[in-house]
Amino acid sequence: MIKARVTVTLKNGVLDPQGKAIEGALGTLGFSGVAGVRQGKVFDLEVEGTDSAKAEADIKQMCERLLANTVIENYSISMS
Amino acid sequence: MIKARVTVTLKNGVLDPQGKAIEGALGTLGFSGVAGVRQGKVFDLEVEGTDSAKAEADIKQMCERLLANTVIENYSISMS
Repeated sequence: MIKARVTVTLKNGVLDPQGKAIEGALGTLGFSGVAGVRQGKVFDLEVEGTDSAKAEADIKQMCERLLANTVIENYSISMS
Repeated sequence: MIKARVTVTLKNGVLDPQGKAIEGALGTLGFSGVAGVRQGKVFDLEVEGTDSAKAEADIKQMCERLLANTVIENYSISMS
């Protein structure tokens, strides 16, 4: 079993109202000095097999086709 | 400016219907061999100042109070 973590984040320049809301909420809670918050997603995948290179290629395809919207999001894959 | 990434994931044993839906969708797209998907959240924070230890302590408080629901979620902080 191969485990991998995919992290999907918004590209620079894409507005992130959810992150802005969190930034505001942190200020309300008394955390001053928070200059920016951007929210993203993380997917922990378990893939059957032992061929890590093949699994990574498959996961890249999964990112392109489903997990990330590559118009506005970047993704990174870390195998573990 | 200090940058940090907070990763929030569901604890083991907590049901993840969103992850299950993604797993099903990947199967529908023809990706066989995906044995499990768990979805989490990632927050990229920018904190003012230069004291990394203080910033990390603050961010831990932010996680406990807002960013994570520690009843059902784990969090990890990586400073960069």
